[in-house]
Amino acid sequence: MKSIAILGSTGSIGQQTLDVVGAFPDRFRVVALAGRDNSALLAKQVAQLQPRMVYSAKAIDIHSPAESLSMEEIAAHPDVDLVVIATSGKAGLRPTLAAIRAGKQIALANKEVLVLAGKIITSEAKQYGAQILPIDSEHSAIWQCLHGEQSQPARIILTASGGPFYGQSPEQLAKVTPKEALSHPTWKMGRKVTIDSATLMNKGLEAIEAHWLFSIPFDHIEIIIHRQSIIHSLVEFADGSTKAQLSFPDMRLPIQYALSYPERLPNAHLPHLNLTKVKALTFEPVNPGQFPCLKLALEAGKEGGTCPAVLSAADEVAVNLFLAGKARLTDIAELITQTITRHHPVVNPSLEEILAADIWARQTVEDIAKRKITC
Amino acid sequence: MKSIAILGSTGSIGQQTLDVVGAFPDRFRVVALAGRDNSALLAKQVAQLQPRMVYSAKAIDIHSPAESLSMEEIAAHPDVDLVVIATSGKAGLRPTLAAIRAGKQIALANKEVLVLAGKIITSEAKQYGAQILPIDSEHSAIWQCLHGEQSQPARIILTASGGPFYGQSPEQLAKVTPKEALSHPTWKMGRKVTIDSATLMNKGLEAIEAHWLFSIPFDHIEIIIHRQSIIHSLVEFADGSTKAQLSFPDMRLPIQYALSYPERLPNAHLPHLNLTKVKALTFEPVNPGQFPCLKLALEAGKEGGTCPAVLSAADEVAVNLFLAGKARLTDIAELITQTITRHHPVVNPSLEEILAADIWARQTVEDIAKRKITC
Repeated sequence: MKSIAILGSTGSIGQQTLDVVGAFPDRFRVVALAGRDNSALLAKQVAQLQPRMVYSAKAIDIHSPAESLSMEEIAAHPDVDLVVIATSGKAGLRPTLAAIRAGKQIALANKEVLVLAGKIITSEAKQYGAQILPIDSEHSAIWQCLHGEQSQPARIILTASGGPFYGQSPEQLAKVTPKEALSHPTWKMGRKVTIDSATLMNKGLEAIEAHWLFSIPFDHIEIIIHRQSIIHSLVEFADGSTKAQLSFPDMRLPIQYALSYPERLPNAHLPHLNLTKVKALTFEPVNPGQFPCLKLALEAGKEGGTCPAVLSAADEVAVNLFLAGKARLTDIAELITQTITRHHPVVNPSLEEILAADIWARQTVEDIAKRKITC
Repeated sequence: MKSIAILGSTGSIGQQTLDVVGAFPDRFRVVALAGRDNSALLAKQVAQLQPRMVYSAKAIDIHSPAESLSMEEIAAHPDVDLVVIATSGKAGLRPTLAAIRAGKQIALANKEVLVLAGKIITSEAKQYGAQILPIDSEHSAIWQCLHGEQSQPARIILTASGGPFYGQSPEQLAKVTPKEALSHPTWKMGRKVTIDSATLMNKGLEAIEAHWLFSIPFDHIEIIIHRQSIIHSLVEFADGSTKAQLSFPDMRLPIQYALSYPERLPNAHLPHLNLTKVKALTFEPVNPGQFPCLKLALEAGKEGGTCPAVLSAADEVAVNLFLAGKARLTDIAELITQTITRHHPVVNPSLEEILAADIWARQTVEDIAKRKITC
């Protein structure tokens, strides 16, 4: 019986984690829940699951004897075996560090944790013997392919669906509405991730995550378009042999695997792959011209220091401006570029310097956007 | 430095093994060679590599101080670390058993060893702690996908190219010449394997091998047509996650992997996969009506006992009749069916009973074919 804390239980990954946990009442027990925006859903989850610990960013009315703790206190609590970091943005950073320092198993879905502070997170995880289990489908795929292998991968190939506007011209992209952008062709995901998926920023952030998770240089990471989202990523080894992990797109599979690792549990709710029904898997090179956000992310990743934090924060604000109808989809890359250009990067930054860069970037995008709107 | 014996060094797998060994002079040393038909090539190999031990089925004129030993003596010799069984037909059976009983690493390319005596081979390998490392591309793929996994596979999916006549009608198949049948679309292989690949007998024999190598029931083995021969096979796990191994078709990769296992060695001679050049991987269900040999093999595998030996021997003779222009491609299944129908299977046979069934089957096919030709 594994005792699980779910930080970000009301988001897309959080809800799917509860779905997986619910399928194995003899294996997993939810001991803590934490939520930010959707306090009504959090209250409902708490009432239903009766966890011992709760964190809510907003005041909620719960009928439960649950102890109210901060996310960091929950992440480090002795009653917790595994912490699911399903928060978004920088919210997961300090709880992840707390879990690492308490030597917990950490199932990580919050991209920004590694994008912002990959160096700190991975070196502390090593120091404290904490295990980081990726939940992103791409990183879960790479992790599964690396099992039992002694040698470092020669190359990691991240697959990208290309999003709902793949192949469209810059003119067409400039006219895309938030509603259109939120209809992802293959994956059920949160709003921010869905927009990042359309711009391929998502894939750039995943390259940065992969760099830290698997200690692989950026020039050994390749990104290819694979519209069907069946192969979730591939690993090429020194001898030229390549391994891939496949499934129908369903986030519950990588979530379940992170929870049950190293075991694999049969789950009748998860779809089984039938390749003869899929018929064909296709692969295309990425046209960098069509995806300026991907290029920006890879450059920021290679640059390192505070650059990925600035990229990530600028993207978050720019995506929100787009979702609020205050910027075009094609403005996102432009807003990030202008922000990064103004940034004076810090090499080997502390957590405080990273968070300061994040705040600076958010303000800078707002300023640029306002001037743009007023001029 | 690993000391390697290559039994069947003049065949297709044997020659490709020498190619791999030659690429790593600091890692592998050839200490023994054995050949059957091509004594001129064997003499050349011996002169070039100066192995300590040689076996030749025919008298050869070698200028070497090599000791002349039987294949069984070579396989069990204390100077040998790893034995490559690259023989064909039943020739590999006794040498494999000798290597097992001497606790050697065995790189196995000779399908019939497991098809004829899978039960004996796998139980003796367990008893003597001998490691069987598959060289067939499909089984190497499955083996690579199983690395690091704790749980048994839920399903094994063997991929089949479909051979050069995929999609043709029985009428068209009846007119195929040996020369046409020997032009395999993707793999460089021996003559017998190439014909078996066209009839899908090869895939049926591989299912029997997989059954023994990975202790998997036949109803958990699926066969799908994958014309590009890039995915060499797949494994589905209990949670619905599927892993695949991919490469451009080149037998040197699984050969090298069996020799270097558990390490992976960079080899500039081996091709690297570029999926964006391949563009698409396709998958189709097998039409059992088009491939009666596959159906026969799966039935014989499930039946067990001496049935797979009879199937395999009957197929070998029938393929030779086709290659000699004495039978049509479509007669192969018919000749095997008639032979199996006449067979009285032995359950849990000894090695002697298996070899007796083999001899009986060969004679029976010849008899049936002669009557057919005369009537």
